[in-house]
Amino acid sequence: MIHNMTENQITLLVIKSLKENKKKEFERILDELQPYDIAQVYDALPEKHKKRFLLFMNTDRLADLLEELNKEKQLEVLNKLEIERTGKVLDLMDNDDLALLLDDMSPERITSLLSGMKKSESKIIQDMMNYPPETAGRLMTNRFVWIRDYYTVREAVDKLKSFAEYAETINYLYVIDQERKLVGVVSYRDLLIAEPLDIINEIMYERVIAATVTTDQEEVANMVQKYDFLAIPVVNEENVLMGIATVDDLMDVVVQEANEDIEKLSASGKSIDFDTKAFVAAYRRLPWLILLLFIGIISGSIISGYEETLAQVVALAFFMPMISGMTGNTGTQSLAVVVRGLVSNDIDKKIVTNLILREFGVGLIIGITCGILISLIAYFWQGNATLGLVVGFSLFLTLIIGTLSGAIIPLILYRLNIDPAIASGPLITTLNDIFSLVTYFGIATMFLSRLT
Amino acid sequence: MIHNMTENQITLLVIKSLKENKKKEFERILDELQPYDIAQVYDALPEKHKKRFLLFMNTDRLADLLEELNKEKQLEVLNKLEIERTGKVLDLMDNDDLALLLDDMSPERITSLLSGMKKSESKIIQDMMNYPPETAGRLMTNRFVWIRDYYTVREAVDKLKSFAEYAETINYLYVIDQERKLVGVVSYRDLLIAEPLDIINEIMYERVIAATVTTDQEEVANMVQKYDFLAIPVVNEENVLMGIATVDDLMDVVVQEANEDIEKLSASGKSIDFDTKAFVAAYRRLPWLILLLFIGIISGSIISGYEETLAQVVALAFFMPMISGMTGNTGTQSLAVVVRGLVSNDIDKKIVTNLILREFGVGLIIGITCGILISLIAYFWQGNATLGLVVGFSLFLTLIIGTLSGAIIPLILYRLNIDPAIASGPLITTLNDIFSLVTYFGIATMFLSRLT
Repeated sequence: MIHNMTENQITLLVIKSLKENKKKEFERILDELQPYDIAQVYDALPEKHKKRFLLFMNTDRLADLLEELNKEKQLEVLNKLEIERTGKVLDLMDNDDLALLLDDMSPERITSLLSGMKKSESKIIQDMMNYPPETAGRLMTNRFVWIRDYYTVREAVDKLKSFAEYAETINYLYVIDQERKLVGVVSYRDLLIAEPLDIINEIMYERVIAATVTTDQEEVANMVQKYDFLAIPVVNEENVLMGIATVDDLMDVVVQEANEDIEKLSASGKSIDFDTKAFVAAYRRLPWLILLLFIGIISGSIISGYEETLAQVVALAFFMPMISGMTGNTGTQSLAVVVRGLVSNDIDKKIVTNLILREFGVGLIIGITCGILISLIAYFWQGNATLGLVVGFSLFLTLIIGTLSGAIIPLILYRLNIDPAIASGPLITTLNDIFSLVTYFGIATMFLSRLT
Repeated sequence: MIHNMTENQITLLVIKSLKENKKKEFERILDELQPYDIAQVYDALPEKHKKRFLLFMNTDRLADLLEELNKEKQLEVLNKLEIERTGKVLDLMDNDDLALLLDDMSPERITSLLSGMKKSESKIIQDMMNYPPETAGRLMTNRFVWIRDYYTVREAVDKLKSFAEYAETINYLYVIDQERKLVGVVSYRDLLIAEPLDIINEIMYERVIAATVTTDQEEVANMVQKYDFLAIPVVNEENVLMGIATVDDLMDVVVQEANEDIEKLSASGKSIDFDTKAFVAAYRRLPWLILLLFIGIISGSIISGYEETLAQVVALAFFMPMISGMTGNTGTQSLAVVVRGLVSNDIDKKIVTNLILREFGVGLIIGITCGILISLIAYFWQGNATLGLVVGFSLFLTLIIGTLSGAIIPLILYRLNIDPAIASGPLITTLNDIFSLVTYFGIATMFLSRLT
């Protein structure tokens, strides 16, 4: 009935059922909605209806709702529930979502939140919280179906059926031995094609692609993307199967990591979105800007060192923005190529050498092209051949330096295990500013007698 | 046996089997590999072994291999096959991968490639090629299982089983009526829980989240990410079910779109990766750089308009890089926030107004902070209070202008249906250069008498 309604109409219908205290009607509506839609309705609800909305929902649905909300809203919901109900809902939540919720919370707060939960469930969560943030151990779920290697196909299918409602994905069954070590994988398709009495051991794939609990989440996402999997098993150092990471969570990882790269490349500061308040956004952006202000002062003091040169040939100032701008731009271009390349490539010496040689080649080509172009422009504009040569030769050199620094700096940071994207665009730009000013004024001073 | 081997060891084993002409051995190895791994082995193979490698593979596996290769390599493989075999392999390829391969090809080349295919299969591909690039119509697959609304659960399960090997995902079954219109969806879990004689019509969800054939691929990826689906149905304007888009393809879309945003923000040019040759990379990067070179000349001519001011107060040049750098930086920060926000937010007037007001607020706060800071620095460094005020007030104004332009320019482009990321970082930076120079020298000239 509601399948053609807009979100607003549905919200109104929900409010009506809440006002009239019609729980049946309320449930009938929610039955037709996806958890994401229910979260949207909850968001749009006036504050006064929220309590009854939560009261009307069963714990299953509450757990689904929580998984769709952001952290702030999750806590808001939990605060509205009684302690006993909180425990039940947390028991039902996927453990990866719960781990994310608890992240950054004080130990006391965690203990009090988990107190209502079943011992077995809260133990799992506490174990997960011991893995480093942003690793496979943090985002795996324990809701998967495993089978033993001696099962028959029929036994495997029976187990799958009885766990279907509980499991996150039913496309793969992971096979473990008596020590819970991961020894194989069969797909649901394999089971359908095999004979009921075949032994799993004989039909399973033995070359299982797996992540370990400490694998970085970005790498896990990369594996799943390359292999087109819907889930990937996660094992510990002894190859014991601990959980699975599912593609829906990994898709979120990909989006999050891409946004982080962009934030860092633009030095826009952590997590500013459309809802961030002006004061908070300014506070997050200011540290970078102030750092860059001081670096700008360094540029200024370099120029002041060449005050006499500049006073004699004021025209040199005309080309300053162009030279430093171009150097910054080519550096940013190299930086973006390298930062994104590091995400999807395995790095070894050969690749790094090739990359640096390639960028040197690029710098050479664009340096020669732009250098000649600006020499001619400067000569015809200012009618001074020496000025043309000084500007052109400086641009040639700074473009090579800029291109190389945009490639080498992130590679060094990567080698030092520092996120290369931190060498943000503005930072590279500002460093290149300094390189380019020194080069430009250095060359100009050398030719000063012929410039005046 | 090979499950603990590295990729290199496996490649050597494959070469051995090829040299000794042992097809059984060859197949035994490939049985244990994922298509992605097989593609890696093919890539690593010396040229002289490639022909026999392809000869030894059955058509099923060849189709899987092709789906894992990039376009260039796909064509290389197809050129090595006989025409008859090409047709059979293309029949087996997923139609979305095939459509991607044919994209950008000349009509004659397409006709000759498709000539060996079954009529029914090549018709589907040609229909797909009629949808605009980067839409759901281009990336949907027709390998899915549909059921009719009057089926019983048992009939649905039977159909699912018989198509399991063929279908791309078995998690959802889409329900259509007699006109092939999409009317519902049931998950495989729903089927397992229901009674065998229940009618699909009664247990299905009617509120199906679907994309249309012309929905932009980025939006489709967004839907799947929000709802945590593994696949999403694709319908035409009459709501007739045309295909499904699967999460593995959409994950590739997310990565591709994020990379494109970064490429555009950094103006690094289209698709430069670690394997791109220096000459090609330079060629792709040069257009931007040359455009920016000319914009730099405009900056230069603005400064030359203030030649007299500059000649009288050379110290003004010391603060030029800092002012234009800071303005560029704050613009890039705003730009990144807006460009990524546009990806995940629905835009209306209210949001735009709030965003612009917010950015104005941000500009005001950082303008005041940095303006006061630089006033003090300039005063203590150069010992000239007027110079301090001129520099500080200029920075205050240019930071507000820069912040606003970084937000407003991409919003205008978005409104004009131009991809806002095209207002790349360097372009905004360079425009802000011009704004800031005019402001700075304008104010300085006004106070010239008190500066000297």
